[in-house]
Amino acid sequence: MERLQEETTERLEFYQRLDGVHAAPLWAVLSQLVRPEPRSRCVPHKWDYAGMRSLLMEAGGLITAKEAERRVLVLENPGIRGLSQITQSLYSGLQLILPGEIAPSHRHAAAAMRLIVEGGGGYTAVNGERIPMAPGDFILTPSWTYHDHGNLGDEPVIWLDGLDLPIVNLFDASFAQTYPSGDVQEITRLAGDAQARYGSNMLPPEYVPDNKSSPLFHYPYARVKEALLQIGGADKLDPCHGIKLQYVNPVTGGYPMPTMAAYMQLLTAGFSGRPSRSTDATVYNVCEGAGVTLIGNERIEWSMGDVFIAPSWNTVAHQASERSVLFSFSDRAAQKALGLWREERLND
Amino acid sequence: MERLQEETTERLEFYQRLDGVHAAPLWAVLSQLVRPEPRSRCVPHKWDYAGMRSLLMEAGGLITAKEAERRVLVLENPGIRGLSQITQSLYSGLQLILPGEIAPSHRHAAAAMRLIVEGGGGYTAVNGERIPMAPGDFILTPSWTYHDHGNLGDEPVIWLDGLDLPIVNLFDASFAQTYPSGDVQEITRLAGDAQARYGSNMLPPEYVPDNKSSPLFHYPYARVKEALLQIGGADKLDPCHGIKLQYVNPVTGGYPMPTMAAYMQLLTAGFSGRPSRSTDATVYNVCEGAGVTLIGNERIEWSMGDVFIAPSWNTVAHQASERSVLFSFSDRAAQKALGLWREERLND
Amino acid sequence: MERLQEETTERLEFYQRLDGVHAAPLWAVLSQLVRPEPRSRCVPHKWDYAGMRSLLMEAGGLITAKEAERRVLVLENPGIRGLSQITQSLYSGLQLILPGEIAPSHRHAAAAMRLIVEGGGGYTAVNGERIPMAPGDFILTPSWTYHDHGNLGDEPVIWLDGLDLPIVNLFDASFAQTYPSGDVQEITRLAGDAQARYGSNMLPPEYVPDNKSSPLFHYPYARVKEALLQIGGADKLDPCHGIKLQYVNPVTGGYPMPTMAAYMQLLTAGFSGRPSRSTDATVYNVCEGAGVTLIGNERIEWSMGDVFIAPSWNTVAHQASERSVLFSFSDRAAQKALGLWREERLND
Amino acid sequence: MERLQEETTERLEFYQRLDGVHAAPLWAVLSQLVRPEPRSRCVPHKWDYAGMRSLLMEAGGLITAKEAERRVLVLENPGIRGLSQITQSLYSGLQLILPGEIAPSHRHAAAAMRLIVEGGGGYTAVNGERIPMAPGDFILTPSWTYHDHGNLGDEPVIWLDGLDLPIVNLFDASFAQTYPSGDVQEITRLAGDAQARYGSNMLPPEYVPDNKSSPLFHYPYARVKEALLQIGGADKLDPCHGIKLQYVNPVTGGYPMPTMAAYMQLLTAGFSGRPSRSTDATVYNVCEGAGVTLIGNERIEWSMGDVFIAPSWNTVAHQASERSVLFSFSDRAAQKALGLWREERLND
Repeated sequence: MERLQEETTERLEFYQRLDGVHAAPLWAVLSQLVRPEPRSRCVPHKWDYAGMRSLLMEAGGLITAKEAERRVLVLENPGIRGLSQITQSLYSGLQLILPGEIAPSHRHAAAAMRLIVEGGGGYTAVNGERIPMAPGDFILTPSWTYHDHGNLGDEPVIWLDGLDLPIVNLFDASFAQTYPSGDVQEITRLAGDAQARYGSNMLPPEYVPDNKSSPLFHYPYARVKEALLQIGGADKLDPCHGIKLQYVNPVTGGYPMPTMAAYMQLLTAGFSGRPSRSTDATVYNVCEGAGVTLIGNERIEWSMGDVFIAPSWNTVAHQASERSVLFSFSDRAAQKALGLWREERLND
Repeated sequence: MERLQEETTERLEFYQRLDGVHAAPLWAVLSQLVRPEPRSRCVPHKWDYAGMRSLLMEAGGLITAKEAERRVLVLENPGIRGLSQITQSLYSGLQLILPGEIAPSHRHAAAAMRLIVEGGGGYTAVNGERIPMAPGDFILTPSWTYHDHGNLGDEPVIWLDGLDLPIVNLFDASFAQTYPSGDVQEITRLAGDAQARYGSNMLPPEYVPDNKSSPLFHYPYARVKEALLQIGGADKLDPCHGIKLQYVNPVTGGYPMPTMAAYMQLLTAGFSGRPSRSTDATVYNVCEGAGVTLIGNERIEWSMGDVFIAPSWNTVAHQASERSVLFSFSDRAAQKALGLWREERLND
Repeated sequence: MERLQEETTERLEFYQRLDGVHAAPLWAVLSQLVRPEPRSRCVPHKWDYAGMRSLLMEAGGLITAKEAERRVLVLENPGIRGLSQITQSLYSGLQLILPGEIAPSHRHAAAAMRLIVEGGGGYTAVNGERIPMAPGDFILTPSWTYHDHGNLGDEPVIWLDGLDLPIVNLFDASFAQTYPSGDVQEITRLAGDAQARYGSNMLPPEYVPDNKSSPLFHYPYARVKEALLQIGGADKLDPCHGIKLQYVNPVTGGYPMPTMAAYMQLLTAGFSGRPSRSTDATVYNVCEGAGVTLIGNERIEWSMGDVFIAPSWNTVAHQASERSVLFSFSDRAAQKALGLWREERLND
Repeated sequence: MERLQEETTERLEFYQRLDGVHAAPLWAVLSQLVRPEPRSRCVPHKWDYAGMRSLLMEAGGLITAKEAERRVLVLENPGIRGLSQITQSLYSGLQLILPGEIAPSHRHAAAAMRLIVEGGGGYTAVNGERIPMAPGDFILTPSWTYHDHGNLGDEPVIWLDGLDLPIVNLFDASFAQTYPSGDVQEITRLAGDAQARYGSNMLPPEYVPDNKSSPLFHYPYARVKEALLQIGGADKLDPCHGIKLQYVNPVTGGYPMPTMAAYMQLLTAGFSGRPSRSTDATVYNVCEGAGVTLIGNERIEWSMGDVFIAPSWNTVAHQASERSVLFSFSDRAAQKALGLWREERLND
């Protein structure tokens, strides 16, 4: 794929006429369009939680959840500012709900996941059920499901949002609606209903799903951590990832939503991971512990609450100074559905 | 499909010559071969637990688990004796292990499920993990997995076995092996390992199963009952089935094994169910409570521990005098895979 | 799995009491019930076409197609007579329709396939389309589809039927109906409609099947043979099977019906195949050529029109004296769906 | 989703500090980010074939296929210039190969499809097989398969390319390689091999694909047109689409490649279609005939060879002045895999 050395006057004049009919010469852009390897415009970056929390609380004083509709500080990758993107394909933000507030009910084509960072007393309502949120809990609000949030406690509730908005918008497939009868959806199911119905390794007989997303919207931290500890006591650690599990849709065993994958991993104190890389740029949130992750040439020091991002095809190697638990999410579900995903373990 | 009124001498002589070349006239058997509706040779029947327990304990004195290899009283449908079949397609039996005994390790093409009826201290070892068994627990030993049983407690342990032996034998696909190095398989995983790895609504990242069966072998009664009660407190009851859930393979959301489906259902006190029927003959075990089930023209009274069978296409209507929990299993998984299953709710 | 040396009087008396409650001691039958390897009661056998044709024509004089409903000579495996079974799980027969005759329209739960052996002018009507039948053509009439046959030509039409009747009857799932408005279903589609709609590597946009069977009912011999010859000119032959293709459901790429698989294979003149064996007992029909197949200890010589059967787990090795084409069918689809199928190539 | 009426100085200063930490206030962009309905930046447009052909031939004199690597005029949607995109998610171009030329062999993550517009004698080599190309033929070169093109005839060969480059690049998953041993891949299969092996409603026994794309790379126009005419003679036309079929992967019955769907539709002379719209922006190429398509508020007149594009969620209504055949492709495969696709028929 050779760069063209020179463009003759003849060609340049030709290109102008092409432009006039909304065409362009492929050979002039081929090498940028079809790269031998991913070279993302995104860069590794960390948002320090203490700092972001402070800004969030300040936002809490500047605008109400109702006026904002969603009081969120969008995390923009420094390499691609101004697009509300943390990676090329994903959106992420930190959301705050103060005691007594409501984020009004709506639904949209974009799928969303939330990882609770701080605070009890918050809830997300989905599908007529109010899901209590505790730190480390993983909550889904799948595509086109009405959802609203509230805080019935007395402390601020903060969580990390992840949405596939850039994917939806690439496909020009965005739809959205506010809930037709008020800010708060009608509650028709008891808390824990979905867990009983779908999350207990049982399903209703002859259950036929009507969409591609998990009907289980709540994955409590306590259960996940227990599972990680159980495995961690038995397995030798994966040399790159420590002990890692992925959230699944119990109806299919597949990803919880068609576009996004999510994981929880445990790194033992002193863990020093081998580098690996994959095409799914990944957003991490630190649930417990402290350590360092080497991403490409960057060294990201992290501790509880921090959010950091590893771009596509950047090498990633984790080191934990104390026992740590990292949540992460990426577009791996979409990449695998579309036949695009690759992973490499290095120095094997 | 008319019965042929008369067979001429000419035809009868012709049939003899056919027989000599291992052929036969279809028109003479068509109406028996292709029935307009299922008319099973199986009949409804109940095995009273008190009586069977007594016989089991007697067997315990007559033969050791080791000599028997499996000390089981096979339940044979009164309509098809001598074939080790409780329905046309399924085998079932009650197995006893006494304290200190071992049922030696082996594996076979037939898939097996077990529902614990009585006793703590028993275990089933599968895939290198020892699974503790408590009453109401549902345990799988899938096709071709080495399994052995033991009783480390001080009371007898009794469970109900269900196997797809008649299906395996119809297809002439029976294989079996004893464990190569002793009566007891090597334990390589801690108890609860499969639950942590596969049963927590998580899976190992990039997990690819190498067979069609659930990697989760243990479904504890406590969790299932909790789920049924949770749903029971919310839903209006299914008019035929009460509150019912099916056991699933968490890797696929499908049946736990390719041939057999299994269910747990809760009937509230005073429940009087509408009749329904389906092509999957079903075996029931009473985990809790008491009641009556009308099967075809039979009236089966049942209480805790009893086993009863509803043949294919017989109407079934449950009535519970007290709150009851019924386990059941059938060949529905096979029938659905082969496009044969039907269900009807009657008096709709 | 030791045979029990002796049964004490005590045990024998106990077994009698078990029998009285419809139970039986597993340990007395375990070794017959759970075999280490398949040991089918079926045996290898060939039905010589010339002889069978003669008997068929005789049947043609003895009974009309209408009176018989289906004028078929059922091929019964010599090892399991009287059950209308050619293998444990499959039914097969040779059917004759004389010029002007009709086999009236009906439908049943059992799935059927037909391989035309002799005669033009015959048709099978399925799903409102009349499918012309020529020798070597493969025709499906899936579960619960109305089908009828006729002969608009001036020569007898003979074909080989294969049905999963024993499977349907094992599951007690037999249903059947005659066509509600006459012997001949209403024709609503032009001949070749399914081929255009489903068989051209295209499908109607957003096509959603409502059952598990191929919507393409006709696989003409000419196309299949052309494909075999094309591949045969390129590939080195499979050492066991020569050049072999399986019929597929174009909507899924899977088997044409959920229970039965079907194949066409080409053996070059002088082909001497290596032995292999598999758990799916297989029925063969010779479309072209002549040769010998060694099945277990039997030596089956065959030529055009002959039907022969290889039982489960019997070694099979084909030898062709001239270029030959063999059709075959088996229950492999069911075995694979149920996780039971195995294959071995020997002398590797 | 109210627009914020005013931003206070306080907020603006706060937003600046957010910007400094690579964050942004969601509430300031929410209504652009999450639209109630798709409002694509793309516009309807037609590239007139006569004009484009003339420019292509001129390009043929200005640059060799070898220097260009691919001598393609990229069609850029007038609404999103400079991005090599015909829709938000798809790339398309017109490619020319002159007699004797070669487009050298390479492979890339992006999947490609080609619809031949003009000229015989061209070939595409994929997977060791040289596929002859004739007008109206549909050719795939799936993700990561080596492909090269050549023209062994004596006339120019022109085709329409469609690639999922924007999708691959959104996910930062681009990989590419030149063929390691020369411009032209080694030919290891006879022409027609894939058709025989995979395209005849048969498959090799036990065939297991190793990727998500069709192994059949060539869908000749003659077969597709024959199928459309056959159906067209039988069916009443779809009120929106006429007679339409989609290309399928014979191994799965699904889309030919995981990201892109492709269709051929026949409109009878005088066809006046009802409007419909869908979220998959679609590129059309006119294989035969002439007519008008109303897209949104635009009126696109087309005739043979023309290329036109209908953006996401724009109403589309076709009218044919003479019998016409339209090829089209879109990202529907990706949208459906990701749970994003919607379609509406209007005036129902």
